[in-house]
Amino acid sequence: RIMRPDDANIAGNVHGGTILKMIEEAGAIISTRHCNSQAEEPCVAALARVERTDFLSPMCIGEVANVSAEITYTSRHSVEVQVNVMSENILTGAKKLTNKATLWYVPLSLKNVNKVLEVPPIQYTRKEQEDEGKKRYEEQKLDRLETKQRNGDVILPVINPEPHTVGYSQSSLIHLVGPSDCTLLGFVHGGVTMKLMDEVAGIVAARHCKTNIVTASVDAINFHEKIKKGCVITISGRMTFTSNKSMEIEVFVDADPFLDEPRERYRAVSAFFTYVSLSKEGKPLPVPQLLTETEEEKRRFEEGKGRYLQTKAKRQAQMQQAAQ
Amino acid sequence: RIMRPDDANIAGNVHGGTILKMIEEAGAIISTRHCNSQAEEPCVAALARVERTDFLSPMCIGEVANVSAEITYTSRHSVEVQVNVMSENILTGAKKLTNKATLWYVPLSLKNVNKVLEVPPIQYTRKEQEDEGKKRYEEQKLDRLETKQRNGDVILPVINPEPHTVGYSQSSLIHLVGPSDCTLLGFVHGGVTMKLMDEVAGIVAARHCKTNIVTASVDAINFHEKIKKGCVITISGRMTFTSNKSMEIEVFVDADPFLDEPRERYRAVSAFFTYVSLSKEGKPLPVPQLLTETEEEKRRFEEGKGRYLQTKAKRQAQMQQAAQ
Amino acid sequence: RIMRPDDANIAGNVHGGTILKMIEEAGAIISTRHCNSQAEEPCVAALARVERTDFLSPMCIGEVANVSAEITYTSRHSVEVQVNVMSENILTGAKKLTNKATLWYVPLSLKNVNKVLEVPPIQYTRKEQEDEGKKRYEEQKLDRLETKQRNGDVILPVINPEPHTVGYSQSSLIHLVGPSDCTLLGFVHGGVTMKLMDEVAGIVAARHCKTNIVTASVDAINFHEKIKKGCVITISGRMTFTSNKSMEIEVFVDADPFLDEPRERYRAVSAFFTYVSLSKEGKPLPVPQLLTETEEEKRRFEEGKGRYLQTKAKRQAQMQQAAQ
Repeated sequence: RIMRPDDANIAGNVHGGTILKMIEEAGAIISTRHCNSQAEEPCVAALARVERTDFLSPMCIGEVANVSAEITYTSRHSVEVQVNVMSENILTGAKKLTNKATLWYVPLSLKNVNKVLEVPPIQYTRKEQEDEGKKRYEEQKLDRLETKQRNGDVILPVINPEPHTVGYSQSSLIHLVGPSDCTLLGFVHGGVTMKLMDEVAGIVAARHCKTNIVTASVDAINFHEKIKKGCVITISGRMTFTSNKSMEIEVFVDADPFLDEPRERYRAVSAFFTYVSLSKEGKPLPVPQLLTETEEEKRRFEEGKGRYLQTKAKRQAQMQQAAQ
Repeated sequence: RIMRPDDANIAGNVHGGTILKMIEEAGAIISTRHCNSQAEEPCVAALARVERTDFLSPMCIGEVANVSAEITYTSRHSVEVQVNVMSENILTGAKKLTNKATLWYVPLSLKNVNKVLEVPPIQYTRKEQEDEGKKRYEEQKLDRLETKQRNGDVILPVINPEPHTVGYSQSSLIHLVGPSDCTLLGFVHGGVTMKLMDEVAGIVAARHCKTNIVTASVDAINFHEKIKKGCVITISGRMTFTSNKSMEIEVFVDADPFLDEPRERYRAVSAFFTYVSLSKEGKPLPVPQLLTETEEEKRRFEEGKGRYLQTKAKRQAQMQQAAQ
Repeated sequence: RIMRPDDANIAGNVHGGTILKMIEEAGAIISTRHCNSQAEEPCVAALARVERTDFLSPMCIGEVANVSAEITYTSRHSVEVQVNVMSENILTGAKKLTNKATLWYVPLSLKNVNKVLEVPPIQYTRKEQEDEGKKRYEEQKLDRLETKQRNGDVILPVINPEPHTVGYSQSSLIHLVGPSDCTLLGFVHGGVTMKLMDEVAGIVAARHCKTNIVTASVDAINFHEKIKKGCVITISGRMTFTSNKSMEIEVFVDADPFLDEPRERYRAVSAFFTYVSLSKEGKPLPVPQLLTETEEEKRRFEEGKGRYLQTKAKRQAQMQQAAQ
């Protein structure tokens, strides 16, 4: 579809969140269709995880987004979907790869939302495809366990913070979950949650560097807990790390099912977003360094640095591989 | 994309206007892409006309709309696009043709909005394709001239109208044209206008028969005049004809460019929508007869009857042809 | 227009904010049109103030909102508009007055946004109309000055608050002002701000009483400062008072124009919203009493009680007058 002013910031760059939402919708359609193809009972595919994704080039208002999706692996209870987004300038005909994403879905019964159904197996053209898929499946399973343990953290408010401190740019947003945010099962679409997360992360980044910012990448996101219609969700973001030209922001989503009396507020999702700052000509700008004050902030900064260096090393390895 | 509660009425049927908007977007993308493929200068394809289209089966919340578009004819300054919409129930896998539409676009220069550019010719696989396209082109050109003359009419308000009269159900809606309604040229998307027209026609139909109603067909719509960002548009609808099981509603779009001093309010578009009334099980219900009071109303009723009988005859001829 | 699921809460009641937004759009259209009718230069009417408005009956999904607007007074630089909203159940034909609102607009030049233009005078049918309008004009002018002084207050966060305290339900929301939130001048529509304010107030009310809640009334709102495209706005709400069956929530809007370096964050708007809690049958429910802890909270509670009693007395006087 054509990107509209609504989908973009005032510099005309489409929000990463809008693209994440389109990706998730494409993934949900293809995996729901697959899981119902041999189903004993009707089901809806629910997003369980999105792998790390890089935004390779910014998309602009007036461009057309081409989204294509393919099922690349199935385990007994989950589906792996690869989604590619191309941006097309229909005036010049130029096409660019905007991003590639890998998503994991789980089929939930329409009759009993807590029942996970079996996934019909796909056919692989080569044995290696299945083996590689299985490897990716095991890896993501491990990673999901890890983040589940990290999820207790809370963002505390700061009074009169100094510029460039963590407290200065941290932000949060509340949203009442309405019917049009939800799937047929009455739970929030993963894509809606990711769009709100990107919105908060973008505001944190803009407050920190006071320039035009765009999403550069999103780390793997795990959806541990479903969020029901009627919940109030709080999406909070804080900066954890800055390199010379990038900012890492941690985002939490907490759901408060206040209408269901016995249920407590709980952490539904958390993720790391990386942003870069762009000049009017679209060139990356230097980013002011994050000032860390508490021990906790220093620790998180070091962890962020670790993730940054690891990603950088991985990318260099890939480029060398590609050059060979 | 997946149809959401927002796209549908309270009975879960997707608004005809939502479908018209998707069709127009697909048509605008493919024709803008084509017209820029060999362009001397960048241009945007503007909707000039939509041929009569029938809604063959209602689409529901949770279904996926598959839209495909193809260029079928090019004249020197216009492009004919055929768009098909399939609805797919991703739970059962069932697919149905929802509607087929034919749209005409004209390429306008991005630098000078009043300049119509030349269209690169397409290749036809058979000579007959070109001849048939040319025939359709000539026919629509004639029809556009005719409707231009009909466009002077105004809807006057009626005080304390009786049920089932024209005055009882007539309705109007105003809308301030904002940036997200507009193309790169700063003019309203044809699809946005059609969606608002369907909204008003739907209110007229629901007021008349007080049941769940759905769009059955839309007569050819000609876009004589562009509508600019910042205009106030008034969309008015009145019932013109009822058969046993259908209602015809005439819709006018008037634009008031109040910021551009010398320009008067003008008629931008007009069209006829046909609605049917559905029971809870989705079966067509009888429609209360329209009570005509003035000479004008009686005349319009007879004209509507003429269109109705003509369409009916055409459909029967097609069915006989198909049966042979 | 027809009320959709998006416009309503999960119980199907249309958000007061949606109605406020429609009212403001109607007011902006009629006053912009009037101010341009004899203009030396093109202008856009900007919302300066909304008088107190009561929501007389809740509107539901599927109903049609009829909005009508009329200019009732003009001073040299401002326009008073009366807007009526009727809800119509198109299935039964039943119509109800939802609310009446009075709005004040000021014409700003399209060429120079800081220039307030002169308003063409309207014709009054009776001399008293002009005198009464002038009285209303003077009264609102006084009130605007007063609220300007009250505007320094800040909502501080509270850690681990007890249920039914002020800190427990207080909420805030951030929003990045995008192109589609803005008028042609690049400033946020008053209606967009009011919709966000109602959203926050509604979440505060729902958190306090954990039931379905609806907007009962909104006190006069003054728009002291324009909010520019690209700002981050923070909308914060806290409960100030509860009676047996109503809650009063104070809402602040702060704008952070972080892209315009020298400008500090500033208070743009503040207002009081009153909410009631409804049972599933739509009857008002008792509201848990607000627990006040600090001196400030107790003072605000007393002030809220004052406003509550004053409104109640005014309404009783009107009812007696109407009964005579």
